[in-house]
Amino acid sequence: MAARLIQPTPSAYGFPLLIKNLLRTPLIYSPDQEIIYRDQARFTYRQFGERVCRLASGLESLGVGPGATVAVMDWDSHRYLECFFAVPSMGAVLHTINIRLSPEQLIYTINHAEDDVILVNEEFLPMLEAVKDQFSTVKKIVLISDTKTTPQTTVPIDVEYEALLAGAAPTYDFPDLDENTMATTFYTTGTTGLPKGVFFSHRQLVLHTYAVITNMSGFANQANVNSADVYMPITPMFHVHAWGMPYVMTLLGAKQVYPGRYEPEMLLKLKLQEKVTFSHCVPTILHMLVSSPAVQKLDLSGWKVVIGGSALPRGLCKAALDLKINVYTGYGMSETCPVLTLAMLKPEMLDWDAEEQIKIRCRTGLPATNVLLEVRDANGKALPNDGKSTGEVVVRTPWLTQGYVKDPEKSEALWADGWLHTGDIGFIDELGYLQITDRLKDVIKTGGEWVSSLELEDIISRHPAVSEVAVIGVADEKWGERPVALVVPKPDQVAGFQEEEIKQFVAKFADDGVLPKYGVPDRVVKVDALPKTSVGKLNKKEMRKQFQG
Amino acid sequence: MAARLIQPTPSAYGFPLLIKNLLRTPLIYSPDQEIIYRDQARFTYRQFGERVCRLASGLESLGVGPGATVAVMDWDSHRYLECFFAVPSMGAVLHTINIRLSPEQLIYTINHAEDDVILVNEEFLPMLEAVKDQFSTVKKIVLISDTKTTPQTTVPIDVEYEALLAGAAPTYDFPDLDENTMATTFYTTGTTGLPKGVFFSHRQLVLHTYAVITNMSGFANQANVNSADVYMPITPMFHVHAWGMPYVMTLLGAKQVYPGRYEPEMLLKLKLQEKVTFSHCVPTILHMLVSSPAVQKLDLSGWKVVIGGSALPRGLCKAALDLKINVYTGYGMSETCPVLTLAMLKPEMLDWDAEEQIKIRCRTGLPATNVLLEVRDANGKALPNDGKSTGEVVVRTPWLTQGYVKDPEKSEALWADGWLHTGDIGFIDELGYLQITDRLKDVIKTGGEWVSSLELEDIISRHPAVSEVAVIGVADEKWGERPVALVVPKPDQVAGFQEEEIKQFVAKFADDGVLPKYGVPDRVVKVDALPKTSVGKLNKKEMRKQFQG
Repeated sequence: MAARLIQPTPSAYGFPLLIKNLLRTPLIYSPDQEIIYRDQARFTYRQFGERVCRLASGLESLGVGPGATVAVMDWDSHRYLECFFAVPSMGAVLHTINIRLSPEQLIYTINHAEDDVILVNEEFLPMLEAVKDQFSTVKKIVLISDTKTTPQTTVPIDVEYEALLAGAAPTYDFPDLDENTMATTFYTTGTTGLPKGVFFSHRQLVLHTYAVITNMSGFANQANVNSADVYMPITPMFHVHAWGMPYVMTLLGAKQVYPGRYEPEMLLKLKLQEKVTFSHCVPTILHMLVSSPAVQKLDLSGWKVVIGGSALPRGLCKAALDLKINVYTGYGMSETCPVLTLAMLKPEMLDWDAEEQIKIRCRTGLPATNVLLEVRDANGKALPNDGKSTGEVVVRTPWLTQGYVKDPEKSEALWADGWLHTGDIGFIDELGYLQITDRLKDVIKTGGEWVSSLELEDIISRHPAVSEVAVIGVADEKWGERPVALVVPKPDQVAGFQEEEIKQFVAKFADDGVLPKYGVPDRVVKVDALPKTSVGKLNKKEMRKQFQG
Repeated sequence: MAARLIQPTPSAYGFPLLIKNLLRTPLIYSPDQEIIYRDQARFTYRQFGERVCRLASGLESLGVGPGATVAVMDWDSHRYLECFFAVPSMGAVLHTINIRLSPEQLIYTINHAEDDVILVNEEFLPMLEAVKDQFSTVKKIVLISDTKTTPQTTVPIDVEYEALLAGAAPTYDFPDLDENTMATTFYTTGTTGLPKGVFFSHRQLVLHTYAVITNMSGFANQANVNSADVYMPITPMFHVHAWGMPYVMTLLGAKQVYPGRYEPEMLLKLKLQEKVTFSHCVPTILHMLVSSPAVQKLDLSGWKVVIGGSALPRGLCKAALDLKINVYTGYGMSETCPVLTLAMLKPEMLDWDAEEQIKIRCRTGLPATNVLLEVRDANGKALPNDGKSTGEVVVRTPWLTQGYVKDPEKSEALWADGWLHTGDIGFIDELGYLQITDRLKDVIKTGGEWVSSLELEDIISRHPAVSEVAVIGVADEKWGERPVALVVPKPDQVAGFQEEEIKQFVAKFADDGVLPKYGVPDRVVKVDALPKTSVGKLNKKEMRKQFQG
């Protein structure tokens, strides 16, 4: 297990920024506050702190030391949170495995990250069985079990997680590492090519935590979150550390609820039973929640939900606000740790009516503190904040991945000219709000002009018959590309659904000058469902394949 | 003007922590929010941002560049805040001069810090006149004037502040400095010896800002401060950057009110007129405010006031709470940037009655995030959190001065064994709250035992006839030292004041076991006033001199 330190110079002033120190504050401030796992387990922070030490002691007994890599395959759990603190604080690297990968992708990431130990939930043993013969660096397997039964498996299990903790020392002397020591890694999957590894240091994760707290606690608006909130993630912990929020809410010593697998019934049960006030998820999950008939009878008022991963359509925003869910957009990428912007309302907007607020809540957001963000034209020139000049979003902050693991070529494209190139296109309005209008690769080029697929989706989502929508560019001899809208109607609208009516609905926006005439889609196609990627985003590559022709 | 960079290595990941970037967020979030100077001037953040650029342009025209030192002598003002941002962001060092220094101390600090430029309020021209012939490095003088008149002075003035700004470019391209570049310096005056210079880097000030926001905004309790607060400092900006709060409140884009000289009438007028909700001051100022008859008729409810500099006596705390001023303790030193602890109430304490809360509010406090704090015995062993084991307070955080400027000997004493030694003694209670019981040099050693002068002061302050009190050790042949209490009676209690009654009052605490018997003072002396240092702290050295014998 080779050392893997980045810039191992002594830290300035002898006090490095380290993940281990984030855990000190809640252990003093709210040691009796709870961390909850489904309806199966409850721990106080005091117990949690001891379990983090036991996990480190146990991992050390398996040979884990500075520079080792410890991978995790689990649903969102207190155990995952224990790994978030124990593994990096030992000087090891936490590899959070995306459990929705194909077997080929899975073994590629395990070998590419050089995992030494894998902690695996019994549910994912079949995935490991399929690839275990191709392990190149894995030495130990730790079983995570909710059922407490011994599973039938050909994976060579060394020890069960709770047994490992029970047999380990309850204290651990975490080292004073260089703050630039690599802390976490995980792989981002596009729709093409092999997964790419990103990585973050202690310094980056600590600064990200501070900046997010500053933005979410320091500014008095609808986004306000503090230690009195009850937190439940609904974006997976393997995906950009659940947007870094577990570090945020642990430092604040808030009550935390880890829901395991995302079953709507369990999510809603935990939400109500534990009085959850703060969550984050992709639009798909929010859509699933607000369109469930059961939800209409529940009191979800005051639930702050940050939406990321893809744009928050205005129709969905309105549906959530109607249920008194306090919903708004956050923006970031795997490469950015992830938080870049939050759609905070400015003080004067807090009195605005719902319709006006929706426009802001669905904006991509204002840059977080210490995030430098520009929109640039094709020549690299920064565009003005005029609400219309559209170009690629580039960023600088202290918490961006330095590049892709062992992939200098793709790293160079990401980091052209010292700024991270997001591959997103958008504009900044006069008030400073970023609006992503599309992915560079999804924008529809028609007759020499650009049409934003996201803008069209936003408009169509506002039609009362529409449940979900995706707009893609389809090859056209005359115009190069033309927009086509794929629409999933609401359940009670399937029978009477009129494709022509949607086109007329969009055409009215063009008549009003909101949309260019050439932006009205040629075709609206009714579909039963939209193809999604492994992390629940629209898979436009798949759609283009299906509808090309 | 020589370069003066500390650890000029390239910062990790190409994104250093810099003061200039703190100003970005409010310029986007609340550009129309106001920064106010007395009843003389109001600026929006947008204007403020431009003035910071103009100041940098103007200073550059005077020869200021990276490594230069720019000193300021002013009351608390928007101009001082402009210097807080412009000077360090240029790569120069801001020297905040204590305007209460003696002429000898003043010229010592100006020459020792190697000031290149001095910005001086017209009120302090006589101070400069007395020492100007001894300047060794000063090249330019900028006049700060509230009266807009040309003062009669022998100080060679180069330009007036507003004229400098008016003639300078409204934009400035602040450089990307190394984050360990020295940003500020100032001198701490003890009761003995020459002033000692401390210094802080960009990294330290940015991290201090983030940590203070995390503590003051992230935790939901009586200490909660956010962007909706209206801020007015009542500890001088020359004294540890007004406890760093101007950086905090600027990053949050809050309304700020700078009161100039601390005149009680003006302070109260601004408090009410501008609806100030957050301030900080030393106990002396709070005492002055709450004991003013005028105050009893004013509505000061909800005013959050952090008390530092010396202990908050319980009697004063109660008097302030009776006026519905939300008062509590903060702790730090010039050497610590300064915030180390805040007496935050834990969630379960928010329902406690006033008497119980007072005990917590008068505690020295809970360590801020990323502050490692221990109480150690004479052998350097950490003492348990038992509420009684008393020793020296030692700390580590990312924002401690590296040492005293050009004084390796004193630096070494400060930084023994890698921890900063505060010279304060105290204990930590079972709930994690630090309680400073005395300065190592003020503790009274009697018959081989220690008596805390602060503890005695706290008890005596609770007697209804007492306005102010100081306890000192006076030499005693038999016991080594014995405690003597100097008491300023309340105005309406002067006539009937009984020194014996105070002794009996204290003796009751000894009877109840709160205080050791040998802790009851031998003498209680009625005095008209207590000697104070230049920053308003009790000058016990002076008292010991007066009462020795």
